[in-house]
Amino acid sequence: MNTARLEASLHEINQIGGSPGEGNTRLAYTKEHWAANDYFIKKCRDEGMSIRIDACGNVIARLEGIEPDLPAVACGSHLDTVQQGGRYDGTLGVLAGLEIIRTLNENGILTRRSIEIISFACEESARFGVSTIGSKAMAGKLEKLPLEQLYDKDGISFPEALASVGLNVERIGRARRSGNELRAFFELHIEQGPLLERIEKQVGIATGIAAPTRLEVIIQGKASHSGTTPMKMRKDALVGAAEIVTGLEKAALAEAQYGTVATTGVCNVRPGAMNVIPDSVHLQMEIRGTVKESKKAVLEYLLRLFQELERSRGLMISSRILSHEDPVLLDGQMVRFLSSQCDNQGITYVNMVSGAGHDAMNMASLCPTGLIFIPSHDGVSHHKDECSTIEQIDKGAFLLKESVLQCAEIVQR
Amino acid sequence: MNTARLEASLHEINQIGGSPGEGNTRLAYTKEHWAANDYFIKKCRDEGMSIRIDACGNVIARLEGIEPDLPAVACGSHLDTVQQGGRYDGTLGVLAGLEIIRTLNENGILTRRSIEIISFACEESARFGVSTIGSKAMAGKLEKLPLEQLYDKDGISFPEALASVGLNVERIGRARRSGNELRAFFELHIEQGPLLERIEKQVGIATGIAAPTRLEVIIQGKASHSGTTPMKMRKDALVGAAEIVTGLEKAALAEAQYGTVATTGVCNVRPGAMNVIPDSVHLQMEIRGTVKESKKAVLEYLLRLFQELERSRGLMISSRILSHEDPVLLDGQMVRFLSSQCDNQGITYVNMVSGAGHDAMNMASLCPTGLIFIPSHDGVSHHKDECSTIEQIDKGAFLLKESVLQCAEIVQR
Repeated sequence: MNTARLEASLHEINQIGGSPGEGNTRLAYTKEHWAANDYFIKKCRDEGMSIRIDACGNVIARLEGIEPDLPAVACGSHLDTVQQGGRYDGTLGVLAGLEIIRTLNENGILTRRSIEIISFACEESARFGVSTIGSKAMAGKLEKLPLEQLYDKDGISFPEALASVGLNVERIGRARRSGNELRAFFELHIEQGPLLERIEKQVGIATGIAAPTRLEVIIQGKASHSGTTPMKMRKDALVGAAEIVTGLEKAALAEAQYGTVATTGVCNVRPGAMNVIPDSVHLQMEIRGTVKESKKAVLEYLLRLFQELERSRGLMISSRILSHEDPVLLDGQMVRFLSSQCDNQGITYVNMVSGAGHDAMNMASLCPTGLIFIPSHDGVSHHKDECSTIEQIDKGAFLLKESVLQCAEIVQR
Repeated sequence: MNTARLEASLHEINQIGGSPGEGNTRLAYTKEHWAANDYFIKKCRDEGMSIRIDACGNVIARLEGIEPDLPAVACGSHLDTVQQGGRYDGTLGVLAGLEIIRTLNENGILTRRSIEIISFACEESARFGVSTIGSKAMAGKLEKLPLEQLYDKDGISFPEALASVGLNVERIGRARRSGNELRAFFELHIEQGPLLERIEKQVGIATGIAAPTRLEVIIQGKASHSGTTPMKMRKDALVGAAEIVTGLEKAALAEAQYGTVATTGVCNVRPGAMNVIPDSVHLQMEIRGTVKESKKAVLEYLLRLFQELERSRGLMISSRILSHEDPVLLDGQMVRFLSSQCDNQGITYVNMVSGAGHDAMNMASLCPTGLIFIPSHDGVSHHKDECSTIEQIDKGAFLLKESVLQCAEIVQR
């Protein structure tokens, strides 16, 4: 492994869609995204890899093994970014794969199994509001998605965006692969959270990927004069909402052992005048976790709290589930495999939950899948200040390489 | 007293600036406000009253008593309204005065003292953001007001508005009166709150007028990914803000015996996305009460809470007093006088705090001042649905008449 070379490649690819101080913008299927794919394709070809772009725009670079008919070992991530995103989110996982191949070739190492590096299309929801479309397509999970009805902020539809890179949405089903083609999939990614840095571990090994349940809550009180309405005669929607916000935190803290988290991110108050008791509040909140029962416990606590507040405060509270996704548990044998790799190589690690979604969560339905995190400084992500050091990258990429090679089976000559 | 006639006058005057289903709009110094004054002036002249419009636009209608050099007894309120306001706020107090004079004349009753009805100018803050300007001018309380810098939403300055009704802002100081001119001032007003209806009292006698202390609070947390940031590593500005909102309510409830109230009316959250832990929250709140120490206790509770939350949640909380007004205590002898009038007349009453500001609070610095409330249905005010029944109006106007006549001293012939 030549981590300096990996870092140089990261630097090069981040010239695409990047401008100093502005972060990187390579929205899915845009010319910047495709230029990054072209960069990746050229570098893979330089290493003697074959290239295939599937019907959803996923780029699959493949180095044939000695026994090309065996299920391959794949790794990868994505090269698209959010608006003004960081330098490592996704990009690291793709280029770390490239660095593995370079190292193999440099040292004349052969493997029994073929090795694939996948640059997934449209991992970020930033353009069309839906994430991991490329890996969903590969795993055959697109059925429920109304692709024709997805538009970006400029009014360009998903089919139009696909067409702009030479693809046809009607053929997108062909991107689906069989699990038989793959022995394993590995994704190296930045944590996008503060845990690893805080507990000083070099890598995190995901045991599962949390899924959000999203909720909209409308609290209806009664507007009245803030000076003339005695405290005990109020139906203050904001005080009710405040109890819901703190209640949600309390419920999630009670489930902390399961890694469940909950957040109220949106709070709009009407009429929003200093001398009028708030009439109504609109909250949007989410509960994330890998343990279904734990998420359910938080949700049920909330629903009980709504009833209590309706009774005690004379409010009307209505709630609506905006979206509900089931968490993905990753293959336990894979978690143990990666953990033992760390033990063998003297890498400090923790088994942890991924709070964010990743392509790995879709690939997990095709083959045993491992998701490796390296620390993100201060937990910052989707932001130009996203940062992992070369030493942190080195540990993660090394673990990825060792794991891929172990699965791909080095041929001793 | 002819309450039906009073109600008919209310109906007539509310044709001005009123349209069905839209409420009444007679912003201060507009042609609608002045048309209402003209209506009032005409009806007063019909009753043989003299009319004077002072330098601030207050209309003073006067019925001379037998001994016109004695301090007069005044009553009144205002004819200006908020945008799409109700039919009783202010208007009732002016026209109830007119009804008293009509009753006197009808029955040939003479009084030793002159009786004045005052239609105060610009009581509502709806046009220029400052309330009770007319009574402030009369009480000599305009010094600190930057009248030249007040503009309405159309960019018309306060001096220009005054000029539009033939007045000159440079002479506004002449509106000031001496306390020696007045023996007493009475204001009849709707409660604009729910208390009287709730406790089933016919009138409220104000013991004081609460003044607001207004506060802006900025809670600075740290934005991070809602999925990847463990509960215990968050600096969630909204949860901190929620604790402040509930804390403010708790502190005001603890002061309920003093009539102190507190409200958070504005709550803006950034960035306001479902998957980002809130970075910062901007709150605006107010504390109202007639007991300074009680208001101070709430404020001090808040400031302690800010420190606690900074420590326990790692937030940065800054606060700024936006405005601070001292409460007005009304003359105790006047409260007892009005209370005994109720006892004598079989009117049920309660001594209460006025949560909203009124012209009476300025007049109180000139002469003994009484403020009488009648119930507002459901506490609704500043709204087309503002409503008091003819029976409720009857009780209040009767109390006003008895009190004015008692002070003006009926001359037995």
